[in-house]
Amino acid sequence: MSLRSGIIELGWGHPDRTLLPAGDLERAAVDALRRHGSDALSYGASQGPRRLLEPLAARISRIDGRPAELDGLLITAGITQGIDLVCTLCSVPGDVALVESPVYHFALQILRDHGLELWPVAADSGGLIPEAVADAARRARSLGKRPRMLYTVPTFSNPTGRTLAPSRREWLLEIAGQYDLLVLEDDAYRELWFDTPPPPSLLSHGSAGVIRFGSFSKIVAPGLRLGWLQTGADFVARAKQTGLLTSGGGINHFTAHVVAEYLHMGLLDDHVVELRAAYRARRDTLVAALGAALPDGCRWETPDGGFFVWVTLPDGIDSMALLPHAEALGVAYIPGPRFFAEGGQRYLRLAFSLVAQDDLVKGARRLGEAIRVA
Amino acid sequence: MSLRSGIIELGWGHPDRTLLPAGDLERAAVDALRRHGSDALSYGASQGPRRLLEPLAARISRIDGRPAELDGLLITAGITQGIDLVCTLCSVPGDVALVESPVYHFALQILRDHGLELWPVAADSGGLIPEAVADAARRARSLGKRPRMLYTVPTFSNPTGRTLAPSRREWLLEIAGQYDLLVLEDDAYRELWFDTPPPPSLLSHGSAGVIRFGSFSKIVAPGLRLGWLQTGADFVARAKQTGLLTSGGGINHFTAHVVAEYLHMGLLDDHVVELRAAYRARRDTLVAALGAALPDGCRWETPDGGFFVWVTLPDGIDSMALLPHAEALGVAYIPGPRFFAEGGQRYLRLAFSLVAQDDLVKGARRLGEAIRVA
Repeated sequence: MSLRSGIIELGWGHPDRTLLPAGDLERAAVDALRRHGSDALSYGASQGPRRLLEPLAARISRIDGRPAELDGLLITAGITQGIDLVCTLCSVPGDVALVESPVYHFALQILRDHGLELWPVAADSGGLIPEAVADAARRARSLGKRPRMLYTVPTFSNPTGRTLAPSRREWLLEIAGQYDLLVLEDDAYRELWFDTPPPPSLLSHGSAGVIRFGSFSKIVAPGLRLGWLQTGADFVARAKQTGLLTSGGGINHFTAHVVAEYLHMGLLDDHVVELRAAYRARRDTLVAALGAALPDGCRWETPDGGFFVWVTLPDGIDSMALLPHAEALGVAYIPGPRFFAEGGQRYLRLAFSLVAQDDLVKGARRLGEAIRVA
Repeated sequence: MSLRSGIIELGWGHPDRTLLPAGDLERAAVDALRRHGSDALSYGASQGPRRLLEPLAARISRIDGRPAELDGLLITAGITQGIDLVCTLCSVPGDVALVESPVYHFALQILRDHGLELWPVAADSGGLIPEAVADAARRARSLGKRPRMLYTVPTFSNPTGRTLAPSRREWLLEIAGQYDLLVLEDDAYRELWFDTPPPPSLLSHGSAGVIRFGSFSKIVAPGLRLGWLQTGADFVARAKQTGLLTSGGGINHFTAHVVAEYLHMGLLDDHVVELRAAYRARRDTLVAALGAALPDGCRWETPDGGFFVWVTLPDGIDSMALLPHAEALGVAYIPGPRFFAEGGQRYLRLAFSLVAQDDLVKGARRLGEAIRVA
């Protein structure tokens, strides 16, 4: 990432650098190397170090209010590496991946890298539409294709900020079961709720056919490239046998030891509380500033968590065409089409995670001006 | 890895834990977080951080005596992750991978995880036999299959310790070019030579069609899970666009910053000199002890570098059947069949990297006793 001078970056969905716990991670790294240096620097367990898995399982159990089994957890080098591994193990080129639309654009790229055919499935303000999943799976089958997986960000979605309605969750899983779809539940934003915790994860309805991905990127630091996946013990047992994980003794092992120390220091829960307050304040500021600055015909919803506000532009304004004008006025965003297989010109994504509050206000004003003159 | 009490582990090809530079890495981690904390903890560049790429390119250039281009380098989470990425980008299930035989067993597992069909190619004391590569590629084509890649450890091989003869190197690449084989050159042990540096890498004959994999695992610490690949700029440009690397901003980014600091401290060259001396002494001790302890009919060669001695057993002795007897006498090794697609019962691999010198002598004696009573 390189920040451009004079431009307020509402494009990048990155944590604010001032919110990264660099000092505490320094202590954790020193502890990991002084107290457990031989373990942290040698080959480890292919599932990930127990020193991380145990406090992680305890923490997930506490958050979910139901026990997370140790043998259903696997340490990953971030959610994207977890998705990459699942693609290697569970798909072949030509399989169909149903993907929530709009959805996190880089995940789509991973699916494409594995030769999967991407079929968008519509979502509305209640999240992914279960009937649309069933329709797409049926259509794929009728064309002789194998609908293999469904990728979704059901909680504080990237890019829309929306959350899949509780009433749709079990229904969605029934349909997935019916069509033998592996559900990839990207749960990166769960802990960053602003008012009340989000509905239970899809995985909480039963681990058969669901792989839930979690990450330290948003709650500790993205540069760590450390996350986990949670699913049935069978999949984890199989993943542990892959050459990738067994040869190196787990992925991102040293960093896993550093984060294990950080968890053992007991600082993460307080840190997450601070993050919630900081991001809630930014959300409030941005949403209020949009209300004051955007012209009639613009629409957006107030997200209950995560990093993003999804804006619908007035009729006839194209977010791709608008971007150079917005940048000329000193504000950037990501145009909607990046998150769709096709279409999406009426939308744009604003991230309130990276930018300080006064810049959020200025950014909203500049965006309003750009839309007005468009 | 769990060491078993009473058993001298000549099986594990791991660096000795006393040779891991834990203290220096602690200083490097503190420096990385104090001086470059925001960069080390945020999303980075998908190729890897420039702060690591630049000293790495300079170091490779010095070792090779020819310039390593920056845009031909990609940071990986170890050689295995690099191989995994190449399989994702360059193969489809059902392709044929030609593999040196015997060869590093976990790499074979990665190729299998990607649905490749493994065809062993014979090697002798001069390394991989080029005509055998041509024969195998021709046979695969005649069966309507696509021979896509060749995996080899041409320098201080795991498991044999052998090095591909200089006279075979260009010849091998000609054949690879002729059959459009992508050559995966696993170069993990290059720096651990004992008397004179090894012949130039396959890549040094031209980067077209060769991907060379290097690693900090053997020269710094395996738990870091940090390595690199070197090839033409085209492949690196393509790899940088994958969802896996672009989404997370590079793989193993934080650790890459820690190792960058370690390189900037200027300690690695001296550390490698120490490692060479330590491993040379262990090789000498093990080879001498084998000479004194193994019965007639056993054969082995003295490796010029790396971690391994490859032993041929007397006629009629099977290394799989022998192992429980050897373990009962307090010594372990890896039986030959682990490194072959089929066969290999006459061989076993001894690693001298993990075990202190007096245990190497004891281990050789116990192995001799086990073979004698077999």
